[in-house]
Amino acid sequence: MASKDDNLSFVLNAIHDVSFQQRPVPKALGDHEVLVEVKKTGICGSDVHFYQHGRIGPLVVEQPMVLGHESSGIVSQVGAKVTHLKQGDRVALEPGAVCEFCHECKIGKYELCGHIQFAATPPQDGTLGRYYRLPAGVSYLIPDSMTLEDAAMPLSVAVHAVANIANFRATQTIAVWGAGPVGLLCMAVAKALGAVRVIGIDIVPSRLEFAKNYAATDVFLPPAPNPNESKMEHSKRCADAMMKEFDLQERGGVNTVDVVVDASGAEPSIQTALHVVKAGGTFVQLGMGTADVQIPMTLMLIKEVTIKGSFRYGPGDYPFAITLVAQGKVDLRPLVTHRFPFNQAIKAFKATQTGKSEDGKSVIKAIISGPDVLPDDHM
Amino acid sequence: MASKDDNLSFVLNAIHDVSFQQRPVPKALGDHEVLVEVKKTGICGSDVHFYQHGRIGPLVVEQPMVLGHESSGIVSQVGAKVTHLKQGDRVALEPGAVCEFCHECKIGKYELCGHIQFAATPPQDGTLGRYYRLPAGVSYLIPDSMTLEDAAMPLSVAVHAVANIANFRATQTIAVWGAGPVGLLCMAVAKALGAVRVIGIDIVPSRLEFAKNYAATDVFLPPAPNPNESKMEHSKRCADAMMKEFDLQERGGVNTVDVVVDASGAEPSIQTALHVVKAGGTFVQLGMGTADVQIPMTLMLIKEVTIKGSFRYGPGDYPFAITLVAQGKVDLRPLVTHRFPFNQAIKAFKATQTGKSEDGKSVIKAIISGPDVLPDDHM
Amino acid sequence: MASKDDNLSFVLNAIHDVSFQQRPVPKALGDHEVLVEVKKTGICGSDVHFYQHGRIGPLVVEQPMVLGHESSGIVSQVGAKVTHLKQGDRVALEPGAVCEFCHECKIGKYELCGHIQFAATPPQDGTLGRYYRLPAGVSYLIPDSMTLEDAAMPLSVAVHAVANIANFRATQTIAVWGAGPVGLLCMAVAKALGAVRVIGIDIVPSRLEFAKNYAATDVFLPPAPNPNESKMEHSKRCADAMMKEFDLQERGGVNTVDVVVDASGAEPSIQTALHVVKAGGTFVQLGMGTADVQIPMTLMLIKEVTIKGSFRYGPGDYPFAITLVAQGKVDLRPLVTHRFPFNQAIKAFKATQTGKSEDGKSVIKAIISGPDVLPDDHM
Amino acid sequence: MASKDDNLSFVLNAIHDVSFQQRPVPKALGDHEVLVEVKKTGICGSDVHFYQHGRIGPLVVEQPMVLGHESSGIVSQVGAKVTHLKQGDRVALEPGAVCEFCHECKIGKYELCGHIQFAATPPQDGTLGRYYRLPAGVSYLIPDSMTLEDAAMPLSVAVHAVANIANFRATQTIAVWGAGPVGLLCMAVAKALGAVRVIGIDIVPSRLEFAKNYAATDVFLPPAPNPNESKMEHSKRCADAMMKEFDLQERGGVNTVDVVVDASGAEPSIQTALHVVKAGGTFVQLGMGTADVQIPMTLMLIKEVTIKGSFRYGPGDYPFAITLVAQGKVDLRPLVTHRFPFNQAIKAFKATQTGKSEDGKSVIKAIISGPDVLPDDHM
Repeated sequence: MASKDDNLSFVLNAIHDVSFQQRPVPKALGDHEVLVEVKKTGICGSDVHFYQHGRIGPLVVEQPMVLGHESSGIVSQVGAKVTHLKQGDRVALEPGAVCEFCHECKIGKYELCGHIQFAATPPQDGTLGRYYRLPAGVSYLIPDSMTLEDAAMPLSVAVHAVANIANFRATQTIAVWGAGPVGLLCMAVAKALGAVRVIGIDIVPSRLEFAKNYAATDVFLPPAPNPNESKMEHSKRCADAMMKEFDLQERGGVNTVDVVVDASGAEPSIQTALHVVKAGGTFVQLGMGTADVQIPMTLMLIKEVTIKGSFRYGPGDYPFAITLVAQGKVDLRPLVTHRFPFNQAIKAFKATQTGKSEDGKSVIKAIISGPDVLPDDHM
Repeated sequence: MASKDDNLSFVLNAIHDVSFQQRPVPKALGDHEVLVEVKKTGICGSDVHFYQHGRIGPLVVEQPMVLGHESSGIVSQVGAKVTHLKQGDRVALEPGAVCEFCHECKIGKYELCGHIQFAATPPQDGTLGRYYRLPAGVSYLIPDSMTLEDAAMPLSVAVHAVANIANFRATQTIAVWGAGPVGLLCMAVAKALGAVRVIGIDIVPSRLEFAKNYAATDVFLPPAPNPNESKMEHSKRCADAMMKEFDLQERGGVNTVDVVVDASGAEPSIQTALHVVKAGGTFVQLGMGTADVQIPMTLMLIKEVTIKGSFRYGPGDYPFAITLVAQGKVDLRPLVTHRFPFNQAIKAFKATQTGKSEDGKSVIKAIISGPDVLPDDHM
Repeated sequence: MASKDDNLSFVLNAIHDVSFQQRPVPKALGDHEVLVEVKKTGICGSDVHFYQHGRIGPLVVEQPMVLGHESSGIVSQVGAKVTHLKQGDRVALEPGAVCEFCHECKIGKYELCGHIQFAATPPQDGTLGRYYRLPAGVSYLIPDSMTLEDAAMPLSVAVHAVANIANFRATQTIAVWGAGPVGLLCMAVAKALGAVRVIGIDIVPSRLEFAKNYAATDVFLPPAPNPNESKMEHSKRCADAMMKEFDLQERGGVNTVDVVVDASGAEPSIQTALHVVKAGGTFVQLGMGTADVQIPMTLMLIKEVTIKGSFRYGPGDYPFAITLVAQGKVDLRPLVTHRFPFNQAIKAFKATQTGKSEDGKSVIKAIISGPDVLPDDHM
Repeated sequence: MASKDDNLSFVLNAIHDVSFQQRPVPKALGDHEVLVEVKKTGICGSDVHFYQHGRIGPLVVEQPMVLGHESSGIVSQVGAKVTHLKQGDRVALEPGAVCEFCHECKIGKYELCGHIQFAATPPQDGTLGRYYRLPAGVSYLIPDSMTLEDAAMPLSVAVHAVANIANFRATQTIAVWGAGPVGLLCMAVAKALGAVRVIGIDIVPSRLEFAKNYAATDVFLPPAPNPNESKMEHSKRCADAMMKEFDLQERGGVNTVDVVVDASGAEPSIQTALHVVKAGGTFVQLGMGTADVQIPMTLMLIKEVTIKGSFRYGPGDYPFAITLVAQGKVDLRPLVTHRFPFNQAIKAFKATQTGKSEDGKSVIKAIISGPDVLPDDHM
């Protein structure tokens, strides 16, 4: 058992330079804050990006920063005015402390808060320590049917994109580009919401196979580009092939693709998706990849497509995600392919970066357990 | 007075080849149709595009086609079941006969109807004849305070984009790229809806001057590109300059640009607009120009911008536009810079194409009067 | 096999006076119409109401009228321009021929069309004949997995109320007052849409038991009124008891009732529902009963409840309903408790009216088969 | 000049028992709070209701409470983290300190916050003292063109009801029942939003005359009830008379009443409004009056009317209101009929209660100035 002053943390010092360091345990909890012992943390593409590049766009790691933000744990201490949580409660952590004072917070779009302190987004430290302090309002009690490992999974990212941003409805059809963890979760959410058809698209056949066994009703492997076609021509050809294979229509209310989600961040995916989506349909950009992307704008105009960005998660997304799991409508366990103890955190980063662990097994999601937790104890 | 069989029409035979031809007067009116004597027709960029290129994208003029679609006129005959119109009524013509049977028509998005017969969109003939037949449901009685010239103006295009697609609200700020007829009408609609600020952007200073005198509260001339910057860098620099000049913010609910409309179809405009629009704001693509456009997708995602296409007009747009004019909230008359008699229709096309008439005067909107109408009689 | 001129129909001549009569087979199909051989027809409360009272409010049966409107059948003939259906197709009939010309039809709210010709709403004849003619656009091909009996069930009424009017979403909680066919279908739709909790309320214990076995997660039997309390006090007491039993909250996002549907038309149900629904929640009035109802208006105001009426069905409701059945998300078969051959149609009315058949069995839904169909052949 | 410890306040001790008392000046400003010297306070019906009855429904004045909540003033001190305000700033006070932690606050509906501390709602003291402390986030800087008297007017109540709850749009028609201050402000907001027609209804002819001169395009005096008709029959007759007088339709998109607002709280008004509103229209309950009201529920259902409660104001309403005034779209000054110095506060209550001042002049809005302010200095 660790002392109350032990807050060993996994710190990014500089590009490819990480170490375990003691950090002070947060003191002086605010009235509405909780201190949580972190038990499970998933590794996300953005964590790996900071590890590899020291920055994501304008966000630069300028001083050593604790990594990690997809976490769950056990409440260790609660602030004076916290009433819905108590010591010992198992909680999922929504890792953004929003300001609650700005216009965006007031109108219920706190994911756009300009003052948010988001875990492992410089200069804010992340959750890969023993303890993490955050507002009680974003610490969510989880039901007994849900493990702490489940609670560390980024299901709320997919809930935000599919249920809220896209407003996906039962009996609709969705197509999701990118069958990594977030794309797979989008497929799972769509299925849980009553999708009549969930089409997964990826350029890696093994990922498509996984998707088919997980939540996709159909999968599609796009044809490779030809040397004598432009990028847009290739994307159009991919779209035509996909629409033919599944007998998809652009109009008419039957066999249309109502919602498309790009969870890949790749330009060909985005272009293809805009060709496939129905007139009047919705495209959601969820994957961060190529910063600037060429899109078929005139086509988008004529079809009156709505293109929306989906950033992190907003009010209600965490509770929605927890309920889906509690109802048994989304099963998160197949996605966890790798589990590491705290002191092997670096292996989780390397496996996520390369997509394979040392034994050659493909990685979907790698989870790092807290300092005193056995990886196979899902808690 | 013309005989009842006279239906002299202005026909595009091939690229740059137009002529006046007699066409049969439409007979056998459907129960819900009306026959209208066309009195005023505005020339639109798409009319000119067909005249110059014989096609717009996939829409190809393969047989002689009557031109024109922005029209108004006087009811000549009504179908057996038409009750809200009678011979002699002055009407604005919404030039699309929708199918009323398809999914898109049923759900109230008839602008997306796949079976629409739209005037002067091949193979459907246009309105530049003496007579035009169309459904009574898209023939709108205009009030005495409105001239037939007013009724030929494409105000409903701007109503569709600003009031319906963008859902623009009073006290918001809008920025409109492109100060041609449609961009100016968007500014006028935003002002009528209670905009607190209407910023017009164009690369032609005289157009900005016109905009400022018409409906813009502010105008902006973007800096020219530098040889050593990428297109996106230039667009970002334009956005920075514009935000600085007007003290615009990306967040916070104060001095934000809530809605941006691109009425230019130009890539730099689109890119700049996406940099300027607030987090959580709306971008509307209204102008048809470059088919494929590079956009700052990651920025769009992080700001959760909504991008929407605005195509033609849908249910309610014509009545909305007519009411704005009847209320005196939009004044269309300053936009009509040129008026031509029917037998000089070709001059209207040439003036619109070059942006200048023979006497060197800049063209905003050119109107062609019907066969028996004096151009200066606004009717 | 009947001759092509046989159109034996079940006609309401006057109150409690019905007979079988030959009616002319509809000729001269419109271009977009179909002629259907009706195979299954469910009896609805409104059919019985006309049978008993000769009127519903302002709708008076002034001349003999064929009864029935919840029907399905086989396409016998198609109009010249019908492309999506052919002779022999199995179809669900949406029994309202809307005008397609009025404002309400244009904006996608055709259930509000003032010119609708709705089956068995005077003076329009109903579907209880051999043949029925209606627009092809409201005749829906059903999949093989669905029987014609399924297709005669009024699932689209519940889809309209729950999925569209209430915009019910996954993870929400619904409470439905009235466990008759429509109330039960509302529960089934909510469950199909991912409800976390479906509470059924009725004053008949056997109906609650049925609901619990069908689609409700919880059921509630309201306490009887006391002699010394006002109606509103009783309703408030019912609400308090219900909220206590299920630990329901008015605010806070946890254990709140997000949507309430009244499918009973009874004043105490409506009042109780308005007390139970959360602040910011939605109440849907679906059941037609007491014309004028006392509601707790100040409470409604303080909670900013939205009250909406749900009338018949609108665009997209039938396809949505068919998809739910095809997906296996709603099972309609348990609801059909009684089946009658055509020549015993009167028995179906009497059983529905009394709630019991001659053998004492409780009626949920009684189905009358077409002239040549065996009741036990679900087709 | 008062000392810094002077906080003379106007206190309700018990029913009809008020007095001036010294209260401690709020100390220990929170980081995000401001202390404001209150300069102008309007008297609202709810203030008078507490004065007369000591309670409003469940809200009981159990200990002496400072009255007043419609206020504006000058910033005296700002909390450590307040950046958008400084000492000396002129501000409008939104008098509700919301919790910012609950579900309702998070989703952008803070008017439904269960933990709100609202001025002069027991046990929270009101604004009729020298000083008032509140969150900086609900203290709004006003432009030079706006007086502090303007800033004390409850325009945001009407903005909430008309612009946000009803989502009223340009070119629509509104009818407002009740031509008191709030009803008049609703008319003014509708006009500012581009209403094509604003119909004011009241049973006091002089109020209608005022409304006609202020913001109504039409006014209507309902006929008195007959002894031989039920209340609902009377309401129906009022509706029929009104629809006939203004040629209003229930359907068709022309001459329909799109939005009705009841600012009277009276049952006949509510019933009449539900008869007048178009099929598919919106009714907003804004006035608090009769707690339980009989409504024509079947009619509401068949017309698919949406009934919504409008409670206080939510995110964005104050800025919206301030912008309307700054734009000159709403003129608040005609509504202020009476002005009192602080030491005559009781006269403002009595005048508001009786609707007339001592000199017999009708009261619309009475304003009480702060301790050192001359009533005729609008500041």
